[in-house]
Amino acid sequence: MKHSKELANAVRMLSIDAVNQAQSGHPGMPLGMADIATVLWQKFLRHNPQNPQWFNRDRFVLSNGHGSMLLYSLLHLSGYKLSISDLKNFRQLHSKTPGHPEFSHTPGVETTSGPLGQGLANSVGMALAERILATQYNREQFKLVDHHTYAFVGDGCLMEGISHESCSLAGTLGLGKLIVFYDDNGISIDGKVKSWFTDDTASRFKAYNWQVIEAVDGHDMAAVEQAIIAARANTTQPALIMCKTIIGLGSSVAGSEKSHGSPLSADDISKVRKFFNWEYAPFVIPEPVYEEWSHVIQGGQQEQEWLLLQQKYQHQFPKEYRDFLRRINGDLPDDWHERSASFITQCRSNGKAIATRKASQQCIEYFAGFLPEMLGGSADLTSSNNTDWSGSKAITRQDFSGNYLFYGVREFAMAAIMNGIAVHGGFIPYGGTFLVFADYARNAVRMSALMKQRVIYVFTHDSIGLGEDGPTHQPVEHASMLRMTPGMTVWRPADLMETAVAWEQSLDHHNGPTALLLSRQNLPALPHGENAAELIKKGGYIIVDCDGKPDAILIATGSEVQLAIAAAEQSKAQGRKIRVVSMPCGERFLAQNAAYQAQVLPDDVRKRIAIEAASSAYWYRFTGLDGAVIGLDCYGVSAPAAQAYAHLGITVENIMRTLDTLMK
Amino acid sequence: MKHSKELANAVRMLSIDAVNQAQSGHPGMPLGMADIATVLWQKFLRHNPQNPQWFNRDRFVLSNGHGSMLLYSLLHLSGYKLSISDLKNFRQLHSKTPGHPEFSHTPGVETTSGPLGQGLANSVGMALAERILATQYNREQFKLVDHHTYAFVGDGCLMEGISHESCSLAGTLGLGKLIVFYDDNGISIDGKVKSWFTDDTASRFKAYNWQVIEAVDGHDMAAVEQAIIAARANTTQPALIMCKTIIGLGSSVAGSEKSHGSPLSADDISKVRKFFNWEYAPFVIPEPVYEEWSHVIQGGQQEQEWLLLQQKYQHQFPKEYRDFLRRINGDLPDDWHERSASFITQCRSNGKAIATRKASQQCIEYFAGFLPEMLGGSADLTSSNNTDWSGSKAITRQDFSGNYLFYGVREFAMAAIMNGIAVHGGFIPYGGTFLVFADYARNAVRMSALMKQRVIYVFTHDSIGLGEDGPTHQPVEHASMLRMTPGMTVWRPADLMETAVAWEQSLDHHNGPTALLLSRQNLPALPHGENAAELIKKGGYIIVDCDGKPDAILIATGSEVQLAIAAAEQSKAQGRKIRVVSMPCGERFLAQNAAYQAQVLPDDVRKRIAIEAASSAYWYRFTGLDGAVIGLDCYGVSAPAAQAYAHLGITVENIMRTLDTLMK
Repeated sequence: MKHSKELANAVRMLSIDAVNQAQSGHPGMPLGMADIATVLWQKFLRHNPQNPQWFNRDRFVLSNGHGSMLLYSLLHLSGYKLSISDLKNFRQLHSKTPGHPEFSHTPGVETTSGPLGQGLANSVGMALAERILATQYNREQFKLVDHHTYAFVGDGCLMEGISHESCSLAGTLGLGKLIVFYDDNGISIDGKVKSWFTDDTASRFKAYNWQVIEAVDGHDMAAVEQAIIAARANTTQPALIMCKTIIGLGSSVAGSEKSHGSPLSADDISKVRKFFNWEYAPFVIPEPVYEEWSHVIQGGQQEQEWLLLQQKYQHQFPKEYRDFLRRINGDLPDDWHERSASFITQCRSNGKAIATRKASQQCIEYFAGFLPEMLGGSADLTSSNNTDWSGSKAITRQDFSGNYLFYGVREFAMAAIMNGIAVHGGFIPYGGTFLVFADYARNAVRMSALMKQRVIYVFTHDSIGLGEDGPTHQPVEHASMLRMTPGMTVWRPADLMETAVAWEQSLDHHNGPTALLLSRQNLPALPHGENAAELIKKGGYIIVDCDGKPDAILIATGSEVQLAIAAAEQSKAQGRKIRVVSMPCGERFLAQNAAYQAQVLPDDVRKRIAIEAASSAYWYRFTGLDGAVIGLDCYGVSAPAAQAYAHLGITVENIMRTLDTLMK
Repeated sequence: MKHSKELANAVRMLSIDAVNQAQSGHPGMPLGMADIATVLWQKFLRHNPQNPQWFNRDRFVLSNGHGSMLLYSLLHLSGYKLSISDLKNFRQLHSKTPGHPEFSHTPGVETTSGPLGQGLANSVGMALAERILATQYNREQFKLVDHHTYAFVGDGCLMEGISHESCSLAGTLGLGKLIVFYDDNGISIDGKVKSWFTDDTASRFKAYNWQVIEAVDGHDMAAVEQAIIAARANTTQPALIMCKTIIGLGSSVAGSEKSHGSPLSADDISKVRKFFNWEYAPFVIPEPVYEEWSHVIQGGQQEQEWLLLQQKYQHQFPKEYRDFLRRINGDLPDDWHERSASFITQCRSNGKAIATRKASQQCIEYFAGFLPEMLGGSADLTSSNNTDWSGSKAITRQDFSGNYLFYGVREFAMAAIMNGIAVHGGFIPYGGTFLVFADYARNAVRMSALMKQRVIYVFTHDSIGLGEDGPTHQPVEHASMLRMTPGMTVWRPADLMETAVAWEQSLDHHNGPTALLLSRQNLPALPHGENAAELIKKGGYIIVDCDGKPDAILIATGSEVQLAIAAAEQSKAQGRKIRVVSMPCGERFLAQNAAYQAQVLPDDVRKRIAIEAASSAYWYRFTGLDGAVIGLDCYGVSAPAAQAYAHLGITVENIMRTLDTLMK
């Protein structure tokens, strides 16, 4: 295997040279995992460097994303559009080689990783997406969807709780084409893990129903190859290949945390070169090594074979093929606008009071009826989140033909798995939990936004309106936490009509996630005019107006819009001119042009009151220094909903009092 | 065991009666776990109902907190100040019996639980606190600190990732006095868990180095007793007692998720009464059952014995005793104000540029030197968070005499364990991670605030100033997410002086957590007057002023204060009068009286610019509609820090331009 070692060493050298050039980065992991990576990429990985988007490629995820130079070196050497000069710009502004792998930024990067454990959970999502899509579209002799998902993980990933959540579920579902390589180097940033991480990881993963291949020498390339063969042979269990490696191999800090996150010294770089008999200058790779590494021809052939299969498939199953193509392109059906508009019209004329979580279920019922890509689920709150519909069918270990995932009580994994499903393609994942437990999923929700993925979060029980469960279950700061997350679209609809528009907008939002904040309690249908759908889409609009210039403007969302309307009505009787603005999506409103914003919130009307049963801080940008916010800057209470509202002052009376104060 | 069964049935009946009265709550778990609870409370639990604060009591944690009526029934029957009328007010406004157990709200409730898995992690923290404190204060013949920690957990707790993080660490540390009862009823809200949770939980916990007692019939009280005896006998491993139970036992929905979270029907309540041969009316407990249940006399004796021991200890080890007493009361030393003031004075005259994370380390070095209750740690980022100091000593399985926990890459567990340590008493826990990974710990951070615990979060790398690691590691919305969390105090200091005050304030903040947001990069020492310490404590203060009424006010925090000062200086040269306000703690500033706030931010100066390399939304409450915010409403970039700042417009130039625009 001497030759292969040279290939691995090319990965090593590029990695340490780039870290050295940047004087920033993580040399230890690429020095340790290069041999494993080389075996996998050279002997097994099916991919086409000239078309990183080839749908049936194997997916490769670097969950220990700090070792990004390993991946960039592999991509460069395999023939992706990632040049030596890109590598020389590692970690520099506008480079294609940022500190951690970033999805859609670098060709061949399958997911953004770095926040530990999440890449692993993403890979579970990818393997799941592959399996479900294969079940839906593959036909005898036609394995249209048929690829593996490989992931590299480190000790950090396996210490994180999300590794438990996602691997437990992967084992339950028996995702046989997921193969995970554990970089078992015994080191994390604080030193030797034996003082804080003594799990018998093999037993742990066996307990999850994984195939575990233990004690593989991660520097013995033949052993790694045998392990991968064994892992691939087992098609009913995900596999964990435990590879003993030496972090920072070849350097003076080999086997030490000192090699993890800092550039090697110049001396050490020489030492590493000597250790691996690497005689070339920095960033120089001999042509034969490039030739051997290139996957361009092979990858082109691999895709070509698949394209031939695809053509035959298209011929034999034209309808399925059209549908498949539409889905992997992320397109909605041609009649999308027509069908969604018709539904929304129907919702406008529905005058019944309804909880918006139930309204959401009606939307799911309608949209999922003609969008087979909608892949639902809940973190064990299905009947509370109302995420199921009449056509829901559970995905189980025995049967992947369904469209609904029982994620279990695993909010973080749910979100990260949805991210994996979304980047894989073919689905619009949506998943539910209580809004307050968005906390548990928090960083994966952020990653949906950072990766601009169409993931739909169904966050129900969106306020103190959930009542008796009390402050542990009542969100306060969560709506604004989500709104402040760049790229997240947050809708807090006030009735069925607003909910329908929010769902339609979420499904049609192709480059970012949406959080739907939905009430537990019933909310009345609000007065909507003919052009309501267009107005709602603007994120904020006048729902009840007065004649002439308003004395004051009330701004509210969701369950509090009804309070604002009631206060406006009472005020009218007092001779006051009050406008009510419903603001289901503040960010969308702020994206409207200045003229529209000024029309809704004229600059010369400064007596403004925002009302939301949540943290007040967000609302001052609308009310300014001369207005007021009726919000919640304390925890809720365990009490029936109406009493909680009254106790915490989210009431019509309080709005009236605040109006009095402002208008004095 | 017929008699004991009757005691258990009393727990059951009170629980279902209260749920029925409230028409809200969770009857299934109390019906299933009453037998286990009765054995534990009757035969093992050492506690004094008349003094729930007795320090050496056993701790009992209901991690599956939705079963709160189980705990309230136990407390009522044992003799705590929790009356039948309290039980009748279950889940009502202002009652002592909220939907989920709330710390400090109900006597005998050891921690707030409900967000699944966290009670379990809290119990790890309690067991850890016990062990460390015992190591520090116990002497031969004087087991001053010597209690068990017992926790009830459900399937939900064990599915959550935090169960992995916390139990892995508990096993590594060999916390032998932690005993956990797993309510292995095979049911979660979505139904039979076998479709989404098929872990071999026994093997999983053995892999964590736990003692596992399997397949205990949770309705066989003798078997439960034997299991507890075996668990207590093993003092080197935490124990998991796996109890097979039937959720909703005795009802028509026994063994079904239907018994989990809704009141039983009237018919079913009769059925349960018949099943258990319980002939008494709702909320009626026969006197002999009360007598048998009461732990008042026994508990008084248990505390009395300990008090005698304590007296002897005091006599023999007066210094240790004083120290111990001070610590369990949560008091700071008598000379606290003197010593902290002296340190702060010293910091004021230190003119060196320093990263505030390093400034923080200097504070830790100083304060931990005389506060042995400071129990530090990091989620595997010690040398980045600078959470260690010269006197740091690791706590290990072999040696609990240290003061520093290597939590591993387990942010969520770290936070929840710190909550457990804090509610246990005797320590001021502090722990570090990168600010962006506050996300991973998010709900436990919220729980610190909800429980008003003195937990100090050292969140370093607080902005795009961390540079090359890129957007996955650069916080944006996190500062404001923390600020909007009710009860959380957030400091983002600008230099050593502000950091010292922030640390002093955190340590002296007895009823709530603090988040310290600290820079990776060096920051210059700012100009501070004689009264700087007092001003900083106000949360926001004039750091650089102009003569007379300002034309504009610049408001900034942390690393951006220097930019505001530079802009003010440039403006002065242009003849503009600019005031600079440093606002290290916005919430603290908003808590000052109106006069002080108006002195710093006069109502008639509306040209205000807030500058923070973070989400802008929070700052409009200070700038209003006529000011501007220079913030970050997008993700950061992978680049050296200075370039990231320049690219994203957090610059003196941008402040100058914005001033020009405002003053046009």
